Amino acid sequence: MKKAVYEEARRKALEYFERAQIVLTESEKENLEVADFGLDDLERTGLQLVTYVNTARCCAKEMVLFPRQTCPEHRHAPLQEIGFIGKEETFRCRYGTCYLYIEGEPAASPACRPPEGSEAWYTVWHEVILHPGEQYTMQPDTRHWFQAGDEGAIISEFSTQSRDDYDIFTDPNIRRLPTLED
Amino acid sequence: MKKAVYEEARRKALEYFERAQIVLTESEKENLEVADFGLDDLERTGLQLVTYVNTARCCAKEMVLFPRQTCPEHRHAPLQEIGFIGKEETFRCRYGTCYLYIEGEPAASPACRPPEGSEAWYTVWHEVILHPGEQYTMQPDTRHWFQAGDEGAIISEFSTQSRDDYDIFTDPNIRRLPTLED
Ligand SMILES: [Zn+2]
Ligand SMILES: [Zn+2]
Repeated sequence: MKKAVYEEARRKALEYFERAQIVLTESEKENLEVADFGLDDLERTGLQLVTYVNTARCCAKEMVLFPRQTCPEHRHAPLQEIGFIGKEETFRCRYGTCYLYIEGEPAASPACRPPEGSEAWYTVWHEVILHPGEQYTMQPDTRHWFQAGDEGAIISEFSTQSRDDYDIFTDPNIRRLPTLED
Repeated sequence: MKKAVYEEARRKALEYFERAQIVLTESEKENLEVADFGLDDLERTGLQLVTYVNTARCCAKEMVLFPRQTCPEHRHAPLQEIGFIGKEETFRCRYGTCYLYIEGEPAASPACRPPEGSEAWYTVWHEVILHPGEQYTMQPDTRHWFQAGDEGAIISEFSTQSRDDYDIFTDPNIRRLPTLED
């Protein structure tokens, strides 16, 4: 990701947090994470986030999706080597609308479309719509992806330990950990 | 606790959440928890809270303390019978000021005093002051208590599983689970 793209996304994400009265420390603002998943198409596929805490036992994050931005399909697999049974996640919508797609009965006419050109990597279509104050808990090792409505979204995540490096994305082109270029 | 006391505390807590733009569902508003810890002195010793999620693995809550209200000293002990190593808690201040007291070097001149008459049951005096956006993570089985400043406080808690029935309070008069009277 170009540094300028990162800086612009960071600035916009901070505006969302400010409007929603979510207070961050200076260090959290400076280190706000912007994930483009290695696809270099942040406007359509990406996620902005602040990790409040991530210990061996639990984790909490605050995430921003820009309007119609998508966090691509993935699952949090168990790590047998370390006796980890997989990450359990609860998403709680704070602002805007979050369209969450999970395993299960597919929606007859889903509200979202995957980013153009990546349709093949979106395979789960059970739809859960989260408005502010609404939440959903996902079991470990189940596929999910999510997209914001036209106003974007702020979503709190409450979960067990986060090990982003072990997330398994359906799209083999995805690289979770970003590289910054000038 | 008298029902009227409960209803008044519930109404006031909802005002805090509204001012801070923290959106709750109707069911969360209706079931907002008011804990007087069996001391029947809610103004000085008490806590208002909404539990978003509490699974076998993790838990998230939103808590309100009214001005100078105190959540009394307690610890989250391990439960050897079920192989639980004790609750780990992160407090993140969202609004107001939270004065948190934990084990460690006592403050020379602490900002808070325990509720009058209960001084004997407040034994840890290492002071951590949390302003909005600031947070602190407590290890299992360590004593802690907290009090709001003059404007009250909203505090998010991110933790491992909550088992309130197993919390150990320093004050032997405390009963964590409330009883409602007409
Ligand atoms: Zn996930
Ligand atoms: Zn506690």
